Amino acid sequence: MPQDFAFKVDACDGSARACTYTTPHGLIRTPCFMPVGTQGCVKGVFPQTLAESGASVVLANTYHLLLRPRLEVLEKSGGVRAFMRWQRALLTDSGGFQALSLKNLVKVEEGGIVFRSHIDGTKLHLTPELAMRAQRVFDSTIAMALDECVPSTSPVSRLRAAVDRSALWAERSIACWRKEEEKVAENERALDEHTLDKPTLDKPTLDKRALFGIVQGGLDLSLRRLSAERTLALGFDGYALGGFAVGEHPQERNALLEQVAPLLPQDQPRYLMGVGKPRDLVEAVACGIDLFDCVLPTRSGRTGQAFCFQDDLPRLATRNLRNARYKDDTQPLERTCPCPCCAQGFSRAYLHHLVKAGEMLASMLLSAHNLFFYQRLMTHARTAVKEQRFAAFLNSVREEHDD
Amino acid sequence: MPQDFAFKVDACDGSARACTYTTPHGLIRTPCFMPVGTQGCVKGVFPQTLAESGASVVLANTYHLLLRPRLEVLEKSGGVRAFMRWQRALLTDSGGFQALSLKNLVKVEEGGIVFRSHIDGTKLHLTPELAMRAQRVFDSTIAMALDECVPSTSPVSRLRAAVDRSALWAERSIACWRKEEEKVAENERALDEHTLDKPTLDKPTLDKRALFGIVQGGLDLSLRRLSAERTLALGFDGYALGGFAVGEHPQERNALLEQVAPLLPQDQPRYLMGVGKPRDLVEAVACGIDLFDCVLPTRSGRTGQAFCFQDDLPRLATRNLRNARYKDDTQPLERTCPCPCCAQGFSRAYLHHLVKAGEMLASMLLSAHNLFFYQRLMTHARTAVKEQRFAAFLNSVREEHDD
Repeated sequence: MPQDFAFKVDACDGSARACTYTTPHGLIRTPCFMPVGTQGCVKGVFPQTLAESGASVVLANTYHLLLRPRLEVLEKSGGVRAFMRWQRALLTDSGGFQALSLKNLVKVEEGGIVFRSHIDGTKLHLTPELAMRAQRVFDSTIAMALDECVPSTSPVSRLRAAVDRSALWAERSIACWRKEEEKVAENERALDEHTLDKPTLDKPTLDKRALFGIVQGGLDLSLRRLSAERTLALGFDGYALGGFAVGEHPQERNALLEQVAPLLPQDQPRYLMGVGKPRDLVEAVACGIDLFDCVLPTRSGRTGQAFCFQDDLPRLATRNLRNARYKDDTQPLERTCPCPCCAQGFSRAYLHHLVKAGEMLASMLLSAHNLFFYQRLMTHARTAVKEQRFAAFLNSVREEHDD
Repeated sequence: MPQDFAFKVDACDGSARACTYTTPHGLIRTPCFMPVGTQGCVKGVFPQTLAESGASVVLANTYHLLLRPRLEVLEKSGGVRAFMRWQRALLTDSGGFQALSLKNLVKVEEGGIVFRSHIDGTKLHLTPELAMRAQRVFDSTIAMALDECVPSTSPVSRLRAAVDRSALWAERSIACWRKEEEKVAENERALDEHTLDKPTLDKPTLDKRALFGIVQGGLDLSLRRLSAERTLALGFDGYALGGFAVGEHPQERNALLEQVAPLLPQDQPRYLMGVGKPRDLVEAVACGIDLFDCVLPTRSGRTGQAFCFQDDLPRLATRNLRNARYKDDTQPLERTCPCPCCAQGFSRAYLHHLVKAGEMLASMLLSAHNLFFYQRLMTHARTAVKEQRFAAFLNSVREEHDD
């Protein structure tokens, strides 16, 4: 655990956990959902609204930021957090996932990933070393090692190759990261000597940052075991499970998570990348996962969909505001939701009107509501763990239905 | 002036005026810019942000609201103000302008305007009577008479026909409006009798609303005179100049405004519809105009354009954030602007990035900034009038340049 970081398990209920992850950019209470701000911006949401929702970490993406606005601009701007005016923690994905999602523009080589820019066609050679340097410049609280991500349903030979390559890149990532840390420590010592006579306040904080490793292996348990073993051997500050939510059935995923999550260290954060729907998150919490990210709350918000607690109970309902049944429904989305949409009394009829009229405000209000919902869902899960009633909570969440 | 309304000229400087217009939905300090929320929503802006910008009136549109969400929905929702969660004043245009802007879908008849809905092709027969009834249901603070709006540069015969028809419709509008008022007054009397024994708090407020007449006549001074004479004779609660900002050169408009504005009563509000750019507003204030509306602040915001005061002085600068010169400019748009964009320190480089990346947040931040700018411009103008230095202020505004 690097200096300025601490990880404490506050409570357990079965495999589900409630933890406190201390970072130089604030506390992260888990289970924790991290809103996705791929390009240094959570779509349609002011950072202030994010903070009000209770979000403690935002996610951004190395590949996208390297192409635009580019590293020089982010360096001059003091990193991604300063650039996007987000004072809390930032986790940056390394770009491995884009090798999957942009596959037509990508060639994966031994040395790294060669991208053909989706913006202007220029080449970007993303190596583990570049990914590490970039994430330092980004001022990321938590950086991710470079991995190769393949669909969880790929044939075993393909999965195996990705596990091997990810292990190699993980090794290069951490070696480069430690070297950078050594440089930072040297600078710190030099500054210490330089500032002996000055008040402590003047001393810049060059605190260390966390680097997480990524376990691959698709839906193959033995490959997941192998990948976990190799990744853990390198001694990362936390561990992610990659390559999920890319085609497999939720039940397959959950069955595997039950086996794989316990392979990750008890005393470090566990992050399930890219998952998922509200119920998926709670199922994964049941397996012992702490951290999540997904584009769903904002993407759904932009298509007129709202995630809600039904009758203010932890039973889920998904509301499609485009549906004509809402056209004169004067109720708010949820009576007791504190989000900017519900608390200010916008009615379902108004949201229906905005969605039908193509008004951007619909996306803004529904994205904000959905992000608040995900935070509230995680708070409910945390409370359930602490009060030793997580199984009942999980059952109520499984009763979700489309409203 | 209807009950619950009052109009007071606080100061004059030349023809420019600073007034206070008291309405049942709050005070309107003039000169005043009214953000446009055509469909019951100012594009990309939360009502709370509008309120923070200092906006005291928002504009919506009768034609659009009649088609969607329709009158029944608005009636059930308690009017447009309750529907859109806007507590301050609302001015609704009658739909006359849409006969011009949607001309391919429109037939103007003696009785009213027949629209072919731009949404689903159904027919809407907009009469003066329907426009009045709708604006009552909307809970509009200020309603507009139905007029026929033609381009200011039309031939005199066309302008003359529109003036005649507008006069006819103005008469029908006000007759219908007074009848509705009489109904409201009767209800009030009935309620008074009914509630004699009850505390005053229980008594619903059925306060009267204002109805403005619209002067047409294009760029023809004698037609404007004729239209003003006829419209004033009907005794409206305020007067608008319509048919501007539809093709004429700003200098032509300003030259005419100098002649026409003084024809409108001194002791009532004067509203120049649909104008315009920042400098256009100040030029019109110089002629004695009090109220303005325009889509420009939000529309420009959506295309990456920001209206700014240069070096924090009342000299204007228009910044196109798409321009590569901003790509690593770490300054805020304006150092001392209190808008959510500037006050939270978003840099020009970040805005440039968001615009280039097609992020909705760019539209949100720039629309908010531009709306704050328009409010600040009007506040500057008001202060200049009160401090008897309006001519100097106008000169500094005329020095606008593209930055």
